[in-house]
Amino acid sequence: MAKSSFEYVKTFELSDTLLPNTWIVVRLDGKCFHKFSEDHNFTKPNDVRALKLMNYAAFTVFREFNDLLMAFGQSDEYSFVFKKHCTVYKRRAAKLVSTITSKFSASYVFYWSKFFGEEQLKYPPSFDGRIVLYPSEENLIDYMKWRQADVHINNLYNTTFWTLVKEGKLSPAQAEKRLCGTVSGDKNEILFKEFNINYNDEPEIFKRGTLLLKKHINMNESYKCVSVIVDVHDDMLKEKFWTYHKDLLFMKSKQNFIYDGPITEIISEQLQEKYISKSDINNSL
Amino acid sequence: MAKSSFEYVKTFELSDTLLPNTWIVVRLDGKCFHKFSEDHNFTKPNDVRALKLMNYAAFTVFREFNDLLMAFGQSDEYSFVFKKHCTVYKRRAAKLVSTITSKFSASYVFYWSKFFGEEQLKYPPSFDGRIVLYPSEENLIDYMKWRQADVHINNLYNTTFWTLVKEGKLSPAQAEKRLCGTVSGDKNEILFKEFNINYNDEPEIFKRGTLLLKKHINMNESYKCVSVIVDVHDDMLKEKFWTYHKDLLFMKSKQNFIYDGPITEIISEQLQEKYISKSDINNSL
Amino acid sequence: MAKSSFEYVKTFELSDTLLPNTWIVVRLDGKCFHKFSEDHNFTKPNDVRALKLMNYAAFTVFREFNDLLMAFGQSDEYSFVFKKHCTVYKRRAAKLVSTITSKFSASYVFYWSKFFGEEQLKYPPSFDGRIVLYPSEENLIDYMKWRQADVHINNLYNTTFWTLVKEGKLSPAQAEKRLCGTVSGDKNEILFKEFNINYNDEPEIFKRGTLLLKKHINMNESYKCVSVIVDVHDDMLKEKFWTYHKDLLFMKSKQNFIYDGPITEIISEQLQEKYISKSDINNSL
Amino acid sequence: MAKSSFEYVKTFELSDTLLPNTWIVVRLDGKCFHKFSEDHNFTKPNDVRALKLMNYAAFTVFREFNDLLMAFGQSDEYSFVFKKHCTVYKRRAAKLVSTITSKFSASYVFYWSKFFGEEQLKYPPSFDGRIVLYPSEENLIDYMKWRQADVHINNLYNTTFWTLVKEGKLSPAQAEKRLCGTVSGDKNEILFKEFNINYNDEPEIFKRGTLLLKKHINMNESYKCVSVIVDVHDDMLKEKFWTYHKDLLFMKSKQNFIYDGPITEIISEQLQEKYISKSDINNSL
Repeated sequence: MAKSSFEYVKTFELSDTLLPNTWIVVRLDGKCFHKFSEDHNFTKPNDVRALKLMNYAAFTVFREFNDLLMAFGQSDEYSFVFKKHCTVYKRRAAKLVSTITSKFSASYVFYWSKFFGEEQLKYPPSFDGRIVLYPSEENLIDYMKWRQADVHINNLYNTTFWTLVKEGKLSPAQAEKRLCGTVSGDKNEILFKEFNINYNDEPEIFKRGTLLLKKHINMNESYKCVSVIVDVHDDMLKEKFWTYHKDLLFMKSKQNFIYDGPITEIISEQLQEKYISKSDINNSL
Repeated sequence: MAKSSFEYVKTFELSDTLLPNTWIVVRLDGKCFHKFSEDHNFTKPNDVRALKLMNYAAFTVFREFNDLLMAFGQSDEYSFVFKKHCTVYKRRAAKLVSTITSKFSASYVFYWSKFFGEEQLKYPPSFDGRIVLYPSEENLIDYMKWRQADVHINNLYNTTFWTLVKEGKLSPAQAEKRLCGTVSGDKNEILFKEFNINYNDEPEIFKRGTLLLKKHINMNESYKCVSVIVDVHDDMLKEKFWTYHKDLLFMKSKQNFIYDGPITEIISEQLQEKYISKSDINNSL
Repeated sequence: MAKSSFEYVKTFELSDTLLPNTWIVVRLDGKCFHKFSEDHNFTKPNDVRALKLMNYAAFTVFREFNDLLMAFGQSDEYSFVFKKHCTVYKRRAAKLVSTITSKFSASYVFYWSKFFGEEQLKYPPSFDGRIVLYPSEENLIDYMKWRQADVHINNLYNTTFWTLVKEGKLSPAQAEKRLCGTVSGDKNEILFKEFNINYNDEPEIFKRGTLLLKKHINMNESYKCVSVIVDVHDDMLKEKFWTYHKDLLFMKSKQNFIYDGPITEIISEQLQEKYISKSDINNSL
Repeated sequence: MAKSSFEYVKTFELSDTLLPNTWIVVRLDGKCFHKFSEDHNFTKPNDVRALKLMNYAAFTVFREFNDLLMAFGQSDEYSFVFKKHCTVYKRRAAKLVSTITSKFSASYVFYWSKFFGEEQLKYPPSFDGRIVLYPSEENLIDYMKWRQADVHINNLYNTTFWTLVKEGKLSPAQAEKRLCGTVSGDKNEILFKEFNINYNDEPEIFKRGTLLLKKHINMNESYKCVSVIVDVHDDMLKEKFWTYHKDLLFMKSKQNFIYDGPITEIISEQLQEKYISKSDINNSL
């Protein structure tokens, strides 16, 4: 069994190392999720269960990679941002993109019932992945803004469209025609004047997508602060987000952002893992 | 919401098109499967449930891509071979490797209980993927032989090692020492003389791994032949495999290999999908 | 002078290894040669001096690389074909394309006066280079045919255009208009009927470009055969060229094509280098 | 002549676009210049004619590319730095590296006699090229420092080595042995104590290499300032160089560095080109 005589085929595997000192963004997109969402009775225009499952799958990815700075998700897509000096898997492109996509996909299936309860998963979904490098802070911030602006645009459209269909009793084709050529202001006005819906009151998770970040939580006096991954819906299109988080992109060791927002399920779970046997956990929350 | 002012960031996504007219091999490997197999009580040296789950996950990938010629799996790895003229996803590397890995991983979790029954999946596993191109038939055949020779070498070693441990009551360290420096003949002899085990009688799936191929099955007279994906354990190290399948690598439209082997679960399932309401399905099997 | 503290910058140089077992084609193109040819009074539509200089520059490249199978040139472009198993410069793309282009460009200037005599070179020209890989014999042959078909199409057009201008006294704009929409047959007819020119009688170097190949010449009886680079104008669009040269693309060691064509300047020069002091050189030619 | 049936071969040429917003460095190295320098009687350890020819060839490249920020040369190598936002040739790697190398090589031959006078060029030399991307100012500055530290280390060694050989009458092997294990201080001491040579007094061009930059020269009152490429030997290892030139790397339009150094041949030539017919040119110099 002269295995060695075949081993030359290994030399056909070429290097795909990514340029050092650039932020690595891995973005995943659901494949055929239009059909998948119909097959699984997703609520329109947004299904909270589905968004929470996306966030939770992203969270399972996030906790495995120390070099992740943040992740941002909306609809059926998620972006993961690795720090510039990241050397995980020697920065090999295929290894990175496939591992992230694999972990995310396996988690999506594994945690399905945690969020969908009785709604059965009918078949395994899949996601594709891509890698983009950003050499400057400005480029990376613009990337994040681009994805978040996309949430806003899509969600305003979808919210108006489905309101016209569900409450306005238009057919999808009529709703589409009605919205053709409208700008943001027009859609806000339709919602407000015709349906008494103030778009600003829509849930943040719908309007802004979800951002995962590493932050610290101050526990009660007897404990040090605890590092957790938080799921927030901050407005990255505002400069003050970037001013406040100005060290975020350059984290070399531990950053020290203090979190004082609500204790979400994702955060609560991490706190419990760390303090499960300690009596004060419930107090602190 | 000037989305357009951020869209320039799309230009940072560079082309990763694969060279045309070369066979594309996507190989997946389980991440930390040593630990995963212990956490899930895999039988040593081979766990039939785990191998069948791998094969089934590969089968779900295979049926989604018309351009797949074959797939070969062993242990926690699987290779997928696309035909030379394949243009799926415009031959974009990241898209291909991530989609295949995603589908495989999601299926692995989705079908876990089909093969593992009561054994609970404790956490989602992950796989990494890579892409290698082969420009000639000879190179590709040598790749397949390389992977299958690897099965043989590993399985003979593992079979002997675990026999020494389980039946020979050696410690793992003693077994390792005993096997140090031995060649195939030595291991065969240990198995035969000391434990009365004829290695040749070991199951083919252990000794040779599993090959997925598209073949045709002749149903009884009233039906045409049916195209199915078959899971076989053929010996690709023998030239006669390649002589018999000589058109396999050059398939342009439908190839016409007739299958007359056993009706495995994977095959049976496909036949039932196609003939579920027909009375003669049972006869023909 | 802590040089070592800066050396990390070397890690930014990424691998650009070309896929093994594929034919490497390096093609050079003159930059701004329309202007260059006017600045140096090139004869229209073809300047024999310029073509011979291109061939000679290509010849100086060819003799430096054992792994070159052939080279083909026309107008201001030249293609160099390396054998499939070539490992020169470890198949690094940038190194290959830049070295070939450099040698060619330096030779073009160095040998200018050998072909242009009194016509002074006014400034150094430049060429760009590119690399394309071909995985199959068919693809490579089609590449060669593509470039030679291009010679034919361009030369028939240019010959007719300049005949209309120079002998037909049309302005360039009139000539262009006259040729608009014509096919090959029309141009042949214009040349023949209006100017009594049989296009077939045009020099082969104009109609077919120049091919460089390694062949053997049988010297007179007392000498073995001699390996030389020959410059020929064979018709690669005809299958018989490829039938006759069927081992050319697969040369592993020395091929054995016997040359019995005319002793060109390029060939003569090589023979003289090898036999300069031997009396029989003149006889054999 | 169905050219179109062969044109599919164009699709085998894959994209090699370089990541946007990164500094592009193209570095050339002479091939076999040890032999070339011996064949052409280069003075050891430095040949001013050869260095000036390198600089002049680099200058001819520099003036052709608006997007070049600087170039740095020493011995038989030259680095060209393109600005981050450069889009020349759509940032195609092979096109960039080959064109630069071609222009440099052709110029080296074309201008040989301008610097070498009676010393005949015996054969055309060649250079190889490579491309490296730097995403941050710090990385790029470290690259420049790395190359200049290299000049210092090599030149101190070579100066001491050749002094030991030429004046100390050691054989090359003896000189090599003598220098084995010495640090900079040791070599300075050998030069000073044994040969009364103060290394600091060596010409800047030898100790520091040559830097090409775009600067402005203030002509006499009646004229505006003139943009020229200057050849200087500044110490880039000192921070003050980078403090002074802090906008150099970020040039978007015209930068405004005023040059008040000596009028070198390269500078003088540019001034003459611009003012050839004007009487005051001589005054201003």
